[in-house]
Amino acid sequence: MSSRYLALANRVITYSVKRAKEKASPNHLPGWILNHSQFPRAMASISRREGCLLTLANLNPNVKVMEFAVCGPLQIRASAIEKELEQGAKKPFNEVIKANIGDCHAMGQTPITFIRQVLALVSYPELMDDPKFPDDVKERAKLLLAGCRGGSAGSYTDSPGIEIIRRHVAEYIEKRDGYPSDWQDIILCAGASDGIKAVLKLLICEICGLKPAIMVPIPQYPLYSATIAEFDMQQVGYYLDESKGWGLTIEELKRAINDTQGKCKPRALVVINPGNPTGQVLTKQNIQEIIKFANEEGLILLADEVYQHNVYDKNSEFHSFKKVLMEMGPPYSQTELASFMSCSKGYMGECGLRGGYAEVINLQSDVKAMYLKSISAMLCPTVLGQMTMDCVVKPPEPGQPSYDLFIKEKNAVLKSLAERAEMVAKTFNSICGMSCNAVQGAMYAFPQIYLPPKAIEIAKQQKLAPDAYYAFQLLENSGICIVPGSGFGQKEGTYHFRTTILPQPEKLKVMLEKFKIFHQEFLKKHQ
Amino acid sequence: MSSRYLALANRVITYSVKRAKEKASPNHLPGWILNHSQFPRAMASISRREGCLLTLANLNPNVKVMEFAVCGPLQIRASAIEKELEQGAKKPFNEVIKANIGDCHAMGQTPITFIRQVLALVSYPELMDDPKFPDDVKERAKLLLAGCRGGSAGSYTDSPGIEIIRRHVAEYIEKRDGYPSDWQDIILCAGASDGIKAVLKLLICEICGLKPAIMVPIPQYPLYSATIAEFDMQQVGYYLDESKGWGLTIEELKRAINDTQGKCKPRALVVINPGNPTGQVLTKQNIQEIIKFANEEGLILLADEVYQHNVYDKNSEFHSFKKVLMEMGPPYSQTELASFMSCSKGYMGECGLRGGYAEVINLQSDVKAMYLKSISAMLCPTVLGQMTMDCVVKPPEPGQPSYDLFIKEKNAVLKSLAERAEMVAKTFNSICGMSCNAVQGAMYAFPQIYLPPKAIEIAKQQKLAPDAYYAFQLLENSGICIVPGSGFGQKEGTYHFRTTILPQPEKLKVMLEKFKIFHQEFLKKHQ
Repeated sequence: MSSRYLALANRVITYSVKRAKEKASPNHLPGWILNHSQFPRAMASISRREGCLLTLANLNPNVKVMEFAVCGPLQIRASAIEKELEQGAKKPFNEVIKANIGDCHAMGQTPITFIRQVLALVSYPELMDDPKFPDDVKERAKLLLAGCRGGSAGSYTDSPGIEIIRRHVAEYIEKRDGYPSDWQDIILCAGASDGIKAVLKLLICEICGLKPAIMVPIPQYPLYSATIAEFDMQQVGYYLDESKGWGLTIEELKRAINDTQGKCKPRALVVINPGNPTGQVLTKQNIQEIIKFANEEGLILLADEVYQHNVYDKNSEFHSFKKVLMEMGPPYSQTELASFMSCSKGYMGECGLRGGYAEVINLQSDVKAMYLKSISAMLCPTVLGQMTMDCVVKPPEPGQPSYDLFIKEKNAVLKSLAERAEMVAKTFNSICGMSCNAVQGAMYAFPQIYLPPKAIEIAKQQKLAPDAYYAFQLLENSGICIVPGSGFGQKEGTYHFRTTILPQPEKLKVMLEKFKIFHQEFLKKHQ
Repeated sequence: MSSRYLALANRVITYSVKRAKEKASPNHLPGWILNHSQFPRAMASISRREGCLLTLANLNPNVKVMEFAVCGPLQIRASAIEKELEQGAKKPFNEVIKANIGDCHAMGQTPITFIRQVLALVSYPELMDDPKFPDDVKERAKLLLAGCRGGSAGSYTDSPGIEIIRRHVAEYIEKRDGYPSDWQDIILCAGASDGIKAVLKLLICEICGLKPAIMVPIPQYPLYSATIAEFDMQQVGYYLDESKGWGLTIEELKRAINDTQGKCKPRALVVINPGNPTGQVLTKQNIQEIIKFANEEGLILLADEVYQHNVYDKNSEFHSFKKVLMEMGPPYSQTELASFMSCSKGYMGECGLRGGYAEVINLQSDVKAMYLKSISAMLCPTVLGQMTMDCVVKPPEPGQPSYDLFIKEKNAVLKSLAERAEMVAKTFNSICGMSCNAVQGAMYAFPQIYLPPKAIEIAKQQKLAPDAYYAFQLLENSGICIVPGSGFGQKEGTYHFRTTILPQPEKLKVMLEKFKIFHQEFLKKHQ
């Protein structure tokens, strides 16, 4: 992994230095390299002081191998290009389209008014009597502040979050699933990522001399591979079946776990539903099979359900793992399960506010105590993020003054996302040398691309994964920034990329048109 | 450590169950135990399902031993008592005073208007034309939103934070120290705790078969002991000299590091200035000696300077480690240093908003790249926390419309804290069997208490640290919640507690009066 990573970085520095020589002021090279991440080569190219105490040789080895492709060298290069354009550089395009990350507002989605009005009032309660704010917004703000010590959002909360918000989350889950949810099983966190890391951390424990292992889908969201690497655990990948719409087959799960015999100890099974980067929505039957498999194999279930509001396919429906295992009854209903949710996705897309929750059920009580203890040193997740989550799980109800606007805004976002999901898959399938499964849910398409032998050859020469070479070519020639499939994992010999469906419709049309042209030229160029 | 922890928990459960039997509804016992942390026994007392996959036996062993005394069993019991009072329980007091945690707003401190007005505008920009908001607030909000992708605080930022805020932090440091600060050395984080963990994480690396070790003051803020335990590093404590106003002597630093010979590899030296829990402010000469020591011993410096605005003693002044080592010139000015700051303390006390920064200087460039990579998987610190930090490092300036109110609010908080600091130390020193160093800075007093042999005996019988027994007695009899010295570390055979100086003046007077009475009765009772 790491060698590919360095190769990617290497590839960028060739551009970087070239551009720097052309344009950059003396401060420019550090300027647009150092303010971004994951960039050893580039960093190394900046003057280095000898005799440092902390060096690559004595740095945490897990940090060295850990990767997070969503913010890798391609994105660093994309930001560099943006700065070059600002400075008047001539390019075959006039803007960079960042389709690499599920960053809704960055791509022009507008915030939900109800959420932002509540945030304004809890931040500055002097506005509480302002007629600009509907009564239900004021009531919510008062209720949330009443849950804060000293009535201020500036106070620490209990480490698992404010009680009233945890209760609202539990009510949301009960309403969603039709099964009880205990508010004390709800742990608020700073975005789902924070909750996922906190749960994975509990599983770091060698068992009978074997490394603890986590089963993750391939392709997967790289937070998992990054965290597994950081925690020095073993990643066990199971392949989603592209030919079956990225479906999850039990045969493959069994194949994957059987291959671990004596090598490591699988402790948990990660399922991302709706899928990231694949966009599939699991059927209830599929989820039942997965739950049975987890029970047979003694695996804790980690259900990444942050896209539960993002289902576009008319024949698909979101089924939570909690609901399905409750329906199945004992022993399945006793499965140790953690389900993760976020305020960053859905129709609200509040990525920057860092709100999320984990519902953790069937944990042994003393284990749960240790879990709560383990998060206590960080004091609490951001209060305003917690309050954002509250608005998501308890939106305005019919009859309340904010309801009509809320529903109008929510439906507009989801309707537009559904149209874009269809447009993206359709366009990619119309491009010779590309095939794309339907985007049933989430915010991404993960098309397979045909890469000619000549392109693969050049990539090898440049020490790049072939799809990374493709992605760099796309970026440099069209300004479109995507993430190569190798950042998520893919079947050997196949090549993909992940693009979000988040650019606003007009921009998305332009992007797809550019994509078409680029791909045809790329194939021609590499015949 | 862990055994004492369990003992503490044990001690609480005896109360818990007793109270539960007296008052609690069936749901009550779980109700007020489970919504808090660090509570194995209590948890275990709740019905337990057999055959869980995740048990104490296969849980992350570092999580098991990790402790965070600031939110331990005492605080769980305090919250339980609050619920009992709500339900009409008769006590020798009518409210719990939580002097255990530096939670300013929770103790009645009011937010700084400028900060909250900026937060309201960036959250809900529709207010931008509202005459209620001064022009400088609007300008700041516009500037900050211009730094956000898509102009929304709901977008992800670069992992180290928004560029304009990092630049403002660097300007603040330059102004504070009179030496240049590179905005690319500024890493924004979700409270200082987040930044401290991110830097400590880099140092996890066995060296020549020796565990990496971190030198921390004793007494220390337990985030350090907790994180060192979580990361399976070695804690090397150096004692602050209580007889010298909690001063830091080089002899003791040498004693501490010499004791590590062949046992572990000290990599970094943590200094907390102003001190937590001790409240001392280091002299410049003392800081110079520390920097020399770190250089001689090859230690990276971690300067916890979150209380840099909280200096009350007229003869003391805050000197940043960055400034002092720059003054000293090479080789000292090349020391690898991380300095941490927060928006949770100072005069603003915005604990719940989770804003902070680390200035990390003299890092090898490729190491810095790895550092930036390591934080990227968590995407970014909360944007509203970042913006709060911006207001702290770039407050209104003379002539700007918000200036007068800002200065009035800031000075009122700091003046009152200074008075409380004096009142607290003075009162404790007036109590027979207590002695307390001057609270020169920060937000805490750490008095030494005399405990009679009989009290120590009873504590032993109850498997409690003697000062923990004292703290539980104080809580049950007076409603005052403090943290026993054993949670921070102290010289063998001495006993202390940490109390904040944060209760508002009137309440603080009441608290100290109650303290006096309790202590005298405690001594009588244990004669």
